[in-house]
This record gives sequence, C-alpha cells and structure tokens, in this order.
Amino acid sequence: MIRGKRRYLLNEIEVAVRFSEVDAMNVVWHGNYLKYFEDGREALGAEYQLDYLDIAHKGFFVPIVHSEIDHSYPIQYGSKVKVISRLVDTPAAKIIHEYEIYDVNSGKLAAKGQTIQVFVTHEKELILTIPEFYAEWKAQQNWIEDEE
Amino acid sequence: MIRGKRRYLLNEIEVAVRFSEVDAMNVVWHGNYLKYFEDGREALGAEYQLDYLDIAHKGFFVPIVHSEIDHSYPIQYGSKVKVISRLVDTPAAKIIHEYEIYDVNSGKLAAKGQTIQVFVTHEKELILTIPEFYAEWKAQQNWIEDEE
Amino acid sequence: MIRGKRRYLLNEIEVAVRFSEVDAMNVVWHGNYLKYFEDGREALGAEYQLDYLDIAHKGFFVPIVHSEIDHSYPIQYGSKVKVISRLVDTPAAKIIHEYEIYDVNSGKLAAKGQTIQVFVTHEKELILTIPEFYAEWKAQQNWIEDEE
Amino acid sequence: MIRGKRRYLLNEIEVAVRFSEVDAMNVVWHGNYLKYFEDGREALGAEYQLDYLDIAHKGFFVPIVHSEIDHSYPIQYGSKVKVISRLVDTPAAKIIHEYEIYDVNSGKLAAKGQTIQVFVTHEKELILTIPEFYAEWKAQQNWIEDEE
Repeated sequence: MIRGKRRYLLNEIEVAVRFSEVDAMNVVWHGNYLKYFEDGREALGAEYQLDYLDIAHKGFFVPIVHSEIDHSYPIQYGSKVKVISRLVDTPAAKIIHEYEIYDVNSGKLAAKGQTIQVFVTHEKELILTIPEFYAEWKAQQNWIEDEE
Repeated sequence: MIRGKRRYLLNEIEVAVRFSEVDAMNVVWHGNYLKYFEDGREALGAEYQLDYLDIAHKGFFVPIVHSEIDHSYPIQYGSKVKVISRLVDTPAAKIIHEYEIYDVNSGKLAAKGQTIQVFVTHEKELILTIPEFYAEWKAQQNWIEDEE
Repeated sequence: MIRGKRRYLLNEIEVAVRFSEVDAMNVVWHGNYLKYFEDGREALGAEYQLDYLDIAHKGFFVPIVHSEIDHSYPIQYGSKVKVISRLVDTPAAKIIHEYEIYDVNSGKLAAKGQTIQVFVTHEKELILTIPEFYAEWKAQQNWIEDEE
Repeated sequence: MIRGKRRYLLNEIEVAVRFSEVDAMNVVWHGNYLKYFEDGREALGAEYQLDYLDIAHKGFFVPIVHSEIDHSYPIQYGSKVKVISRLVDTPAAKIIHEYEIYDVNSGKLAAKGQTIQVFVTHEKELILTIPEFYAEWKAQQNWIEDEE
C-alpha cells in the first residue's frame, strides 16, 4: 500500500453476490473478489472517463501485473458487496488501485486489496514513462487528498 | 438428440472437480457442466485433429448456437467427472456433440447434454453448406456406428 | 417451451457484462448466459417473494434438472444484457422459467432459454406433488395471461 | 515471501487452460490464476495426506486470509500451465503456500504468488496456536530444506 499523503479518485458501487460465486461454506469463494475489484475498477474508469477500449485504440494495453487480497470477514449468499475503489496517484508509469469490500448485510469490512497495471504496446513492449494521453487525463482530474 | 442409426466419434476424459466449482449445497453448480462439456469437446478435437485455432486460420468460427443439459445426479466436491463426448455425424453444416457426465466416485450418470455449433465467416456470415475442409476431415474419420 | 395459452410472472433486469465473462472472440462465453439466467431468476424470486433461502427453511431444495440456451447474437464487452425472465405456470411439481437475453447496445435478441427445477427434500427425495407452501404462493400471484 | 532458510513440501502438476479462462486478449484472465493456485494446493494436500474434508471433520476450517499474484508473462489458450506449489513451514498457526506458474508452451515463468490460510473453529473463532492434528502431521513430513 502507498504510504504518506495520498491523492486518489474514488468510486463506490454495490454488486449482488451470485449463487454461483459462493462455495461449499456458503461464503463468496476468495478468488471471486478479483471480479468485484474489476467491477469497481471499471466503474471508476467509467465515472472518470478512463476507458479501456479507448486505451486500446490509443495503442496500449494495461495488463494487471500484481494483485493482492486480504480477507477479514466472509460474505454470504443473499448479501451484496459494496466496492470502494481508489485510483491512487503515482509518479510511476503504473495504474494503482486500492479496494475495500464491505458486506452490505452486516456493514463489516470483508476484504481489502490492491491491483497494479502497467502500460504495454500492442507488441507487448513495456512502457517505462507515463504515456502522454494518460498524463493529460491525470492533469484533468480533481484528485482527493488524504489528510495524513 | 439425434434418432435412428448414429455415426459418431468418441472421446472419454476425466476432470477434477474444483472447490470453486461447487455451490453452497456442496455440489457442482449446474452451469459448470458447460465447462466439462467444453473440456470433452476440446479433448475430442485434439484426439481427432479437429483444431479450433486451425479452423480460425481457415477462415471460420464455430460458435455454439444451442446447448442443453439434463441433470440426474449431483456431483460433490472431492469427486471427479468422467466426460464421454460424441461428435455425431450430421448432413447439416453443423457440429453436433452429445455428452454424458459420470460422477467417478459413485459411477452414476450425473448429466447428459448436447451442443450445436455452426460455421460463420470472420465477417459473421452464417455458412449453410459444409465447408470443404470439414467435409474432407469428416471423410477421413473412422466413424463408430450404433447398432440400433 | 410451453405451448398454448401461457400464464406467467415477469421480471426484467439489466446486468453489466464483466471483462472476465468474454472470451477470446471478445463476446460473452456461451456458458455465462446461465449466470444471467440465474440473475433473472433470483430477481424474479425477490420481486414476487419466492425466496430460495426460505424454501430451504421449509425443507425443500429446488435443483435445476434441465437448462437450455439458444444463441442468436453475440454480446460484446462494453455492453449490458437485459434479462427478461418469466416464471411460467405449470400443473407439474416443477418451477419453469423462460428467459430472453437482449444485447442492450444493439437492442438485439441475443439468446433465449429455459430452466426447469424440481422439489427435493433435504434427504434428496424427489417430490411429485406441488408442496403446499408453493401452491399457496402460486394462488396469491397476479399471473399475466398471454393472448395466444 | 518468507526469507532465510526455507523448509517446504513440493508438488508439481500440469493443468490445461480452458477456453472459458482466457479473456478478450486471448490470454488467461488474471483472476483465474487463483484457480490454478487452488489446483496446486489441493494436489499438494492430496500428495501429503493433508485432506481438507478431513480437516473439517476434525473441527476446523482453513479459510484463505491473504492471496497475492505477480504476473510476468501471459499464457495463451492452447497452452497448459505447470503449477509448482510449496507448502512453506512456519511456526505460526497458518498454512502458507507459495506458487510458481509456468507457461508450458514457452517454458517461461508466467506468475508467482502466495496464499495464507488460518485455522478457525466451526463457530468461526480464530485459532492462534497450531492445532494438535496439524502439528502431528507436520512432524511426519520429510521437509525439503533450501540451501540459502
């Protein structure tokens, strides 16, 4: 996780838990949280006009190179998940998201996590400096600043 | 299902049941049988050199236009599934597979099903006559014939 | 499909297409339609107070014994699906749903399908007559009747 | 990751990549690696008689509280994954696995990762000391030691 003063964009959505997403313990199978992270990430992208199809048209893919999840509370079938996603500003040529997943029924924090994406060309070459279109997009956003 | 004398190619595989594939009743979620059908279909294709990447190179996609499953016995986590797949000969420009899924632990028939694929060009135009490469492939196979 | 005059209950929802739900052709993998059917079935159950957890408490499970899908149009990532679900009245001890899936971006019908559920006890015994609680629930509904 | 001299148990399996597991880029969707990790973890458990159903009978669940994946190379449809799983010894009341995923077609390392499980009672109480049955199981294993 990124320490110190954080600048971020925020999105919050609710997602229903599918029956096919719970396991034999009647709780969401741990791997399905990456689907909720993706739901949050895409909702954030939609809210702030960071469109993945558009990124592809500009010549870049943004594959996920790291993801992690910390689970603290199980979510049962019949509940919903609230996904709070933050796109956290970084000087690196990376897209970093942090996530909090809440169990809507109990209000409890169920999981926290992070994903890191990089920029690659369509020829799969890693880009080490922030692409111009992304720098421009970043400059146009109203970032939220954490009081430390 | 196709009636009368059947000509078919046969493949049999075993597939482990994943923990993430069972539901809150501790049995395989019904929709996951389509993954086992796909495992069987691809194993059959590999055995008889009907390669989907190769079909794409020849200019065709073979999307599934119909699938159906009949469930008769639940499969629990800890078991395996045996998938018996038959590619059933048809004069139509279609690829028809029939499947039987057995619960390996009990030996019981768990499900039967069918998928139907058609040929479309890369421009998504439906092909109504059997493509030449597929007619040739069919002519080379040693079809099994059901005694009725 | 059920012929003749149909009595049914109706539900309509929209569901986002997840990136993880499309395949290498950039269209929804055919097996994922069973998840959309389930989304529709559960939304219908919620709208008409037919609660699956409640059914379990009354001593019954309602496993799916048949499902089928007919595909007519592919849905791409970036679109949404509209799920129209009908619980169709039947004198049998079955719960029959019919589904239509529309591609929201194009408005086109993407798929139709059906699922059939039966009643079993917690000891997995099949129930051949409609359980009392379900007969009562059915009697309380305002069924829509198709003009043939 | 655990530093210093490591003691571990090792398992190696190969798993086919399903068509339904690749995304619109024709590479395995990042979240599906957690399924391959689970395949490896269960194969290791089977090889060393650490049976999850048996653990449940002894009164414990072992939920995953942390998982992480680092991706370095994409795996395409048509390839297989080789999963190398290590259960790494730890004095804590935790089960720690480390994973390496190789793309069988190219031989390249595709991803590395880790999962951490804890012991909870069926009443969901966290166990802070190693359960006796697990201590006994650990004492019976022939651990591999890394030369640093």
